[in-house]
Amino acid sequence: MKIDGKAYRTIWLAADRARVEVIDQTQLPFAFKVVSLATRDDAAQAIRNMTVRGAPLIGATAAYGMALAMRADPSDAYLAEAAKILKATRPTAVNLAWAVEEMRAKLQPLTAPARSNAAYAFAAKVADDDVAQCRSIGEHGHKIIKDLWEKAGRPKPFHILTHCNAGWLACVDWGTALAPIYAAHDAGIPLHVWVDETRPRNQGASLTAFELGAHGVAHTVIADNTGGHLMQRGQVNMCIVGSDRTTAHGDVCNKVGTYLKALAAHDNDVPFYAALPATTIDWTLAKGRDIPIEERDAKELTHMTGRDSAGRAATVQIVPDGSAALNIAFDVTPARYVTGIITERGVCKASREGLVGMYPERAKEAAE
Amino acid sequence: MKIDGKAYRTIWLAADRARVEVIDQTQLPFAFKVVSLATRDDAAQAIRNMTVRGAPLIGATAAYGMALAMRADPSDAYLAEAAKILKATRPTAVNLAWAVEEMRAKLQPLTAPARSNAAYAFAAKVADDDVAQCRSIGEHGHKIIKDLWEKAGRPKPFHILTHCNAGWLACVDWGTALAPIYAAHDAGIPLHVWVDETRPRNQGASLTAFELGAHGVAHTVIADNTGGHLMQRGQVNMCIVGSDRTTAHGDVCNKVGTYLKALAAHDNDVPFYAALPATTIDWTLAKGRDIPIEERDAKELTHMTGRDSAGRAATVQIVPDGSAALNIAFDVTPARYVTGIITERGVCKASREGLVGMYPERAKEAAE
Repeated sequence: MKIDGKAYRTIWLAADRARVEVIDQTQLPFAFKVVSLATRDDAAQAIRNMTVRGAPLIGATAAYGMALAMRADPSDAYLAEAAKILKATRPTAVNLAWAVEEMRAKLQPLTAPARSNAAYAFAAKVADDDVAQCRSIGEHGHKIIKDLWEKAGRPKPFHILTHCNAGWLACVDWGTALAPIYAAHDAGIPLHVWVDETRPRNQGASLTAFELGAHGVAHTVIADNTGGHLMQRGQVNMCIVGSDRTTAHGDVCNKVGTYLKALAAHDNDVPFYAALPATTIDWTLAKGRDIPIEERDAKELTHMTGRDSAGRAATVQIVPDGSAALNIAFDVTPARYVTGIITERGVCKASREGLVGMYPERAKEAAE
Repeated sequence: MKIDGKAYRTIWLAADRARVEVIDQTQLPFAFKVVSLATRDDAAQAIRNMTVRGAPLIGATAAYGMALAMRADPSDAYLAEAAKILKATRPTAVNLAWAVEEMRAKLQPLTAPARSNAAYAFAAKVADDDVAQCRSIGEHGHKIIKDLWEKAGRPKPFHILTHCNAGWLACVDWGTALAPIYAAHDAGIPLHVWVDETRPRNQGASLTAFELGAHGVAHTVIADNTGGHLMQRGQVNMCIVGSDRTTAHGDVCNKVGTYLKALAAHDNDVPFYAALPATTIDWTLAKGRDIPIEERDAKELTHMTGRDSAGRAATVQIVPDGSAALNIAFDVTPARYVTGIITERGVCKASREGLVGMYPERAKEAAE
């Protein structure tokens, strides 16, 4: 997507065709800085310190980390070590382990001299595949937006509410929940996006607001408390959220607070869509309540980081000493409150039938 | 209520029986400071700069401001001027104008030498009446808590979720939504309170957490996004919120985000109560959607104030430059999602019948 008129991905090959460049997301939204990764350890460090974040982008960075490793030393020993180090950067991200193992499996059979070039080509494919998948989600979602916009009498603007950041900054380009928004915006539909602040980590107020603004999409940041009121007043035409994990029955596990917005959408007849790639569907899970929910450091809630009046990053404490705080990262929206699921293959009902119809081979695989 | 074991009100007569003392709420939750008001202008300033806040407390402070004025100069001219100045401090607060006019009407007929003593007595009554009203809400709410706690098998703890600050800091003592919690806690029911942070002004994370902690009530601060998930997991036994305005049909207008919690409570069969004095009921309003909703400065959302690592108050910006922000202060929870209304007279259904049954004379008055 664009930043000040120039098209970017979150990760790309540098002009020397050897180094890899990424946007330093720890500096967003207040500074736009590009970081150059020259070695395997640079790549590992970038993942570890969240210079890059978002499962698809972490996967692509790890793939390029393997390429940087092969460029330095294409030996079997170094290949094995690189895989081990990169996988250990953030052990819970599914895409990370997947990308590293995929790279390793492809590189292992090759002769050492052939590995470096092949690794760069494989890493580029990991990135390109993610872009193609997100673009496809964008196209399918764009059709829904266009349809709802026309049914609503082509309002100016057409209001879409989103929660958290499921944008291109979490992927290589386009994003998941934001891909339909970019596609519709680029096609000329006059959109306005309500951006949930998304406490406690504020990914909406920081990342989503930044990327929509940089691409030129009209948007307004609101407190997470506000969406229900806007829906009651008819000021939300639809909602689109992402999903971190989706059950085989269509329950959607996404950033905490998604469930509350889905309830309000249901209460006010506002269409509520989840946009997600097939990789988030967990065919082994039937019930959303069985999804383990991550509890994170309470400090994300008790303290807030932003920019002080001198322009420096600063952190303030906002909860009194002695008060406990609980930081639950996700919640589960039951399928009955999800109007539809937008995937890279098309749109389906949030139900077992819907998902199996969309991915018959994966459902069969999981059943075996 | 108590602060570190010592009983306080938010406003009281100083040891010299002339000055008035208040808790400086701009310093909370990080510092507990008492401010002495010696003159009418001190009282006006305390209201204006939010040293005191909350409609009932503003009313009591204005009443004492009239007493301070009469102590300095009991003339007709000074009485009229004091009323004018105090009423202008925060022109939209209903209790403020009411308390000032009430004082003026009582003082005007008296001879000048009699006014000062009478004014102190009247102001004390304004404060005492508020305490009695809140205590009564607390007693009625305590019965509901006790009943639900016993029906639930006397769990340890019994979890109550609240939103924003409808506590004793907004009143003279006890509070509205928190009054039942204090009454039940003091009676030995093992409570634990989920405190919604309450973005964008954070009254939950700051004021509610402070006052519960100071009185010794177990509590945990959560992001506003979290309550729905906790209810799905069965970790909320009931909700109690306040109300800034209540329609004659029982719709409850309270801090934005209340509606979302009511929807989640309804979806998970969690009892949802609003605690409010009769003064918040607007008998002229039938529908919640007719309540005008205040829109506040976007800076409350884009910037956050807390305590920096050096212990000083500091403000950080959290939304990127160029992103719009909308700060809606309240929302309306339709009566159908409110299990019951706790008033100083008892508990009733959130409906016209319920409210008229509780306040027949007021409903009749409004109809005339």
